[in-house]
Amino acid sequence: MNSATLAPALRWNSARLTKWMTPHLQAVEAALSRWVGVEAPVLLGDAMRYAVLDGGKRLRPLLVLAASEAVHGNAEAALRAACAAELIHAYSLVHDDLPCMDNDVLRRGKPTVHVKFGEADALLAGDALQALAFELLTPDDGSVPPATQARLCRLLARAAGSEGMAGGQAIDLASVGLALDEASLRHMHRLKTGALLQGSVEMGLACASGVEAAATAALSDYGAALGLAFQVVDDILDVTADSATLGKTAGKDAASDKPTYVSLLGLAGARAEADRLLDEALSALERSALADVAALHALARMVVERDR
Amino acid sequence: MNSATLAPALRWNSARLTKWMTPHLQAVEAALSRWVGVEAPVLLGDAMRYAVLDGGKRLRPLLVLAASEAVHGNAEAALRAACAAELIHAYSLVHDDLPCMDNDVLRRGKPTVHVKFGEADALLAGDALQALAFELLTPDDGSVPPATQARLCRLLARAAGSEGMAGGQAIDLASVGLALDEASLRHMHRLKTGALLQGSVEMGLACASGVEAAATAALSDYGAALGLAFQVVDDILDVTADSATLGKTAGKDAASDKPTYVSLLGLAGARAEADRLLDEALSALERSALADVAALHALARMVVERDR
Repeated sequence: MNSATLAPALRWNSARLTKWMTPHLQAVEAALSRWVGVEAPVLLGDAMRYAVLDGGKRLRPLLVLAASEAVHGNAEAALRAACAAELIHAYSLVHDDLPCMDNDVLRRGKPTVHVKFGEADALLAGDALQALAFELLTPDDGSVPPATQARLCRLLARAAGSEGMAGGQAIDLASVGLALDEASLRHMHRLKTGALLQGSVEMGLACASGVEAAATAALSDYGAALGLAFQVVDDILDVTADSATLGKTAGKDAASDKPTYVSLLGLAGARAEADRLLDEALSALERSALADVAALHALARMVVERDR
Repeated sequence: MNSATLAPALRWNSARLTKWMTPHLQAVEAALSRWVGVEAPVLLGDAMRYAVLDGGKRLRPLLVLAASEAVHGNAEAALRAACAAELIHAYSLVHDDLPCMDNDVLRRGKPTVHVKFGEADALLAGDALQALAFELLTPDDGSVPPATQARLCRLLARAAGSEGMAGGQAIDLASVGLALDEASLRHMHRLKTGALLQGSVEMGLACASGVEAAATAALSDYGAALGLAFQVVDDILDVTADSATLGKTAGKDAASDKPTYVSLLGLAGARAEADRLLDEALSALERSALADVAALHALARMVVERDR
């Protein structure tokens, strides 16, 4: 499988990927801890930090950083964009867990934000995290060129909004109990999960100036395929893993009669679809003709193979 | 009263203000209708448009436009910033009305968004409106310089976030039933209502390049004083007006045991405070030494005198 991309000598094994990830994850954690909720009114700040710190795989930040490195982007811009993408993700989880949405009480193995802080503060913490994402992207200390700031805000706003993540969640809401076909399911997930993952890759690219349009288009395709693959594997894990492994309630989708890739394609079919999307992502990487894509390559494989 | 600022010949009466406002309001309504929820999934887009269109005094957009005109700012940037400020305001109302917050069923004389569309879609519509605000500020058609886009995003993010509007709402939540002193009440309102009104003025200024720091500081003070005056008058109207006039439930604050300027200072004391803040705003306008501030002058008076 995955005949495309990267001479075998350039492919990272999991130890090499871990070696790359470790300092990046440390930098992201330190930055989030420095930037999130510190100046906020006490309870709100606590809720914001609880929602963001000490949890999460930080996949979106890693994608931003890997994409930025592939084009030798501004490192400060990339760190800020990495954190901003994570804040959007974190806020979406806080709001998604609220009683009027999924009504979930467990997330990353801990009580959800509204269980711990109350619904009103959870709502406000999510709102404030979204605003903070855009604040992080627009420092006034001269560290990030204004044109980069504007590009990053544009990409993040589109990824998060009604034609991206929030739109996908609305379609998801409206489709409970409906018999979606694969095209509709795919469209929903392209928005709900895919838009922010793809947007993370695009933000990484936007940290550099003068990246060729062909490379940008190819890496955007990589992000789209990866984003969908992520969701397919999520659907698989919802069936095959237990709550302790997931850190959230397993079997929720089936129980709530939500359409999933597994309910549509079966378990083997969903796994084949994940592999196909991985191939698509890796082919797009090759098409980008960028040299330093070993981290992006390894991250895609990590996403798809986390259920193996 | 209000001896400060503007030779009498330059002060607008209400007919002159209306003449200025009418085309600006039309432009804002047309832009909002063109930009809000059009490409969103059906129900979400409907909820977004319901939350934003056909209602509201559009005070924040008018402040953006008047401030931009005072410094001869980029008109496209100003229109986008005007709409973005209104979207942040509109989303905050949608979330504020939710059952877990104020649980309000009436807004601008109509059922609130969650009553009409359900809580989940109201939550998502608010989230999507916040993202859309930043999307509007970052067009990629060359109409707004990137440095202006970045400044506008920075100002709006700060005004909306945990050290601005969302932070003020959190303090408000935490203070129900408490005996706040005037300093604490003022701090809460400076964030909750004031930050976005002040931010609207600052965004208007940011639509031009090279505005003198002293003028920016003075107009920022104008915005801060106006923002607080607005809240004092709101507190007065909550006591003196009926629901039909307000378009929302009157007497809510007193009923929910929230501290207000009226509960703290009495009705006459609150009116005196509103007048004092108006003077402060108009003095700041004069200090700005900008020539074209007649609209800002008239808007401040309109805000404070709407209870007379």
